[in-house]
Amino acid sequence: MNNQKIAEILNELRERKSLIHNITNEVVTNFTANGLLSLGAAPVMAHAKEEVEDMTSNAQALILNIGTLDENKVKSMVLAGKAANEKGIPVVFDPVGAGATPYRTKVARNMMDKIAVTVLRGNAAEISHMIGQQWEIRGVEAGETGGNKVDLAKNAAKQFNTTVVITGKEDVVSNGTSTYLVENGHEMLSKITGAGCLLSAVIGAFISTEKDLLTGTVAALATYGIAAERAMTRGGEKGPGSFQIEFLNQLNNINSEIIAKHLLVKEV
Amino acid sequence: MNNQKIAEILNELRERKSLIHNITNEVVTNFTANGLLSLGAAPVMAHAKEEVEDMTSNAQALILNIGTLDENKVKSMVLAGKAANEKGIPVVFDPVGAGATPYRTKVARNMMDKIAVTVLRGNAAEISHMIGQQWEIRGVEAGETGGNKVDLAKNAAKQFNTTVVITGKEDVVSNGTSTYLVENGHEMLSKITGAGCLLSAVIGAFISTEKDLLTGTVAALATYGIAAERAMTRGGEKGPGSFQIEFLNQLNNINSEIIAKHLLVKEV
Amino acid sequence: MNNQKIAEILNELRERKSLIHNITNEVVTNFTANGLLSLGAAPVMAHAKEEVEDMTSNAQALILNIGTLDENKVKSMVLAGKAANEKGIPVVFDPVGAGATPYRTKVARNMMDKIAVTVLRGNAAEISHMIGQQWEIRGVEAGETGGNKVDLAKNAAKQFNTTVVITGKEDVVSNGTSTYLVENGHEMLSKITGAGCLLSAVIGAFISTEKDLLTGTVAALATYGIAAERAMTRGGEKGPGSFQIEFLNQLNNINSEIIAKHLLVKEV
Repeated sequence: MNNQKIAEILNELRERKSLIHNITNEVVTNFTANGLLSLGAAPVMAHAKEEVEDMTSNAQALILNIGTLDENKVKSMVLAGKAANEKGIPVVFDPVGAGATPYRTKVARNMMDKIAVTVLRGNAAEISHMIGQQWEIRGVEAGETGGNKVDLAKNAAKQFNTTVVITGKEDVVSNGTSTYLVENGHEMLSKITGAGCLLSAVIGAFISTEKDLLTGTVAALATYGIAAERAMTRGGEKGPGSFQIEFLNQLNNINSEIIAKHLLVKEV
Repeated sequence: MNNQKIAEILNELRERKSLIHNITNEVVTNFTANGLLSLGAAPVMAHAKEEVEDMTSNAQALILNIGTLDENKVKSMVLAGKAANEKGIPVVFDPVGAGATPYRTKVARNMMDKIAVTVLRGNAAEISHMIGQQWEIRGVEAGETGGNKVDLAKNAAKQFNTTVVITGKEDVVSNGTSTYLVENGHEMLSKITGAGCLLSAVIGAFISTEKDLLTGTVAALATYGIAAERAMTRGGEKGPGSFQIEFLNQLNNINSEIIAKHLLVKEV
Repeated sequence: MNNQKIAEILNELRERKSLIHNITNEVVTNFTANGLLSLGAAPVMAHAKEEVEDMTSNAQALILNIGTLDENKVKSMVLAGKAANEKGIPVVFDPVGAGATPYRTKVARNMMDKIAVTVLRGNAAEISHMIGQQWEIRGVEAGETGGNKVDLAKNAAKQFNTTVVITGKEDVVSNGTSTYLVENGHEMLSKITGAGCLLSAVIGAFISTEKDLLTGTVAALATYGIAAERAMTRGGEKGPGSFQIEFLNQLNNINSEIIAKHLLVKEV
C-alpha cells in the first residue's frame, strides 16, 4: 500500500465533494453532518420510505447506522441499501450495539443478508456478536491487544464476504485476504459520542473516491486518527467538549502533507 | 427602510422572549434551540399530532422545516400550519432539499398550497425547484452573482404571494414588489450544518416582533450575518468547530449598536 | 447528610461506569450522551418497542423524557419503565413541558400512574401542573424565591410518593419528609438547551450508584452545579456556545475534592 497515495485521496475527495447519504441514529446526526462538512464532503440525511431510493441514487455513498433503530428506519435502510446495490454505490454498515439486545443482533445480521455491504465497521464486541462469537470478545474489551481483533476481522470478512473494520485502541481492516493495522488516533475519541458513527460516514466518503477498498478505508482511518491526534495538542486536552470542537477544526485543516508525515499503517 | 429601526428590533425581541415553535429536521434540533436561546428567544420543539395545534397556538411564530421529513411529520406540519393561520401567527417555511427528490419537491409545493406561509426561505436551488425553474439555477450555484437570484426571489414571491428569502453569498428578500439585498454574513456558515435552518427560525423570531415583514426579515438576515462576521474574528477562523461555538456566543453578545454599525442592506 | 460522602459518590460512579438507558427527546440526545460520557457514565439510547425492555434490563438506570413525545415513544417509555420496575432499576422521569399542552400534561400524569418513578425532576411550572396547582407557580416563575418551591416539592413528593427535584435558581429535593436545597449552579445553564434534560440523566447515574436517594440526588445536583460554576470561570463567560463546551470539560475534570470544597447544601 502506497503511503503517498493514501495521503492524497483526501484531495480528490474534496474536489469531488461527494454526496454522502446517511440513514443514521438520532444521537449523531448533527456531529456526522458537521464532520463530513469539515472534511470536505457533502452530507445528506433522509429516511422517508417515499424518497430514500431516490436520495441514495443521487449520492456517492450510503451509510446505514442502527444506533436508534426502529421498524420504519430499518425498512428504509433496506430500501436504500438495495437501491445502492443496483447502482453500484458503496454501502457502509455500522451495526451499533449489535449484541446489546436480541433485536439489534437480528436486524444487524438481516441487513448483511439483504444488502451487499461494501464495508462493515464496528467495535470488537459488535462484530463478534454478528458472527456468533461473543465469547471471544470479553478479553479484548477488557484491554487485550491486537491478536484477537485481527482474527476476528479476518473471520468476519470471510463470513460476510466484505471488507471489515474493527476500531479500538488500534484499527484493523481486513478483506479476509489482506489485513492492515492503523495505529493513528487518540483514546479521547471514546469520550465523545458518535466518534465511531462519524468514522463510518468518513469511510463512505473515502471509498466513494478511491475504488481500491483497502486503500480507501485505510486512508479514512489514518486521516481520522491523525485529525484526533492533532486536536489533542491544539486545545483538546482541556476535556471532551474542547476536543470535539478541535476535532471538527482539524478535519477541516488536515491535508495530504500532514497525513503523509504522521501515517501509522502496517500490513499484518 | 430605516437602519436604526432595523437595528433595534432585537431589543424588543429579547424583551418579549418570543416562543418559537419548531417542527424541524432531526439534524438541527439542538443547534436551532441553542441559537434561538442565544439570540434571546424561547424555542420549543413538538411534533405529535395530538399537540401541535395547541403548541402552535401558544407560540409567537411557527417554523416548518422538511429536512428529514416523513409522512407523520408532514401531517403534523400541516396541522400546525393551519392552526397558525387561524390565529394569525406567522409561519416560516424552509423547503430543505426541494428538488433533491420528487417526494421532497411535491411535499414542499403542497405545503404552499395548504398553508399560508408568511416567509419562504431557501437557497436558490430549492426556491427554483419550487417554481419549476431548476434550469435557471445551475449557474448561480456555480458562483454567479446577484442578478438571477433577484429575479428568482421576485418571481417566487409573486407566484406564491408571499415574502421570499434566498440565501447565499448575499441574501435576497422580496415580496414581489420591493426587493432588498443583505450583504452581511460569512462563507464559513456553509461549513456548519443547519446554518440555513437556524436562520429560518431566527427570521420567525424577528417577524414575531416586527410586523413589517420586509423590515423584520432584513433585520434577521443582517443580525445573523453580522454575528457570523464577528464570530470569524473572535476564534472562528480556527475552523468550523470553533466557528459554530463562537457564532452562538455572538448571537448572544450582539446588540443594536453593533448591528447599526455593520448593517449592509440595499434596495434593488 | 454527610458532605464527604456526597463528594465521593462520583468516584464510585466512575468505577462502575453505569450504563444509563435514555428514552429522551430528539433535541438533547447528543448533549445528553456527551454529558454522561464526560461525567464517566455510559449512555445508551434506544426506543424501539422490540428492544426497550431488553435494553433497560441491562442498564443501571432508565431516563424517561417527554420533550418531543409522540404515541410510539410514549408506548416504549411505558414498556421500558415497567421492565425497570420489575428488575428494581431506578427510573428518572423528566416531564418536559407538562402544562404546555393538554396532551403533555395527560401523558406526564399517566406516566406517574403506570410506572413507579424513582425521581421526578422538572422546573416549578412543570411540577405544579402535574399536581394540578398551576396557579401557584406564576409567581415563582416570575422570580420569587424559595418558599413556594419547597412546598411544591414536598406536596408533589407526597402526592406521587416519590422523590421530587425542582430545579431553578436553587434546586429543591424532597421525599415529602426530608427536603434539601442545593445552591450550586449558574444561570448560564438556562441559555443552553437540554441543561435540565442532561441533569435528569446525571441524577440517574448518581442514584444507580448511591442507594440512598436523597444523598444520591443531592450529589448529582451539587456536582452538576459546581461543574457549571467552574465552566463560567474557565471560558464560559464568553457566551452560551463556549459555556456549553466548557461545561462538558468540567463534567469530565471535576473530582471529589472539588465537590467537597464547593458544595452548597442545606436541609430546609
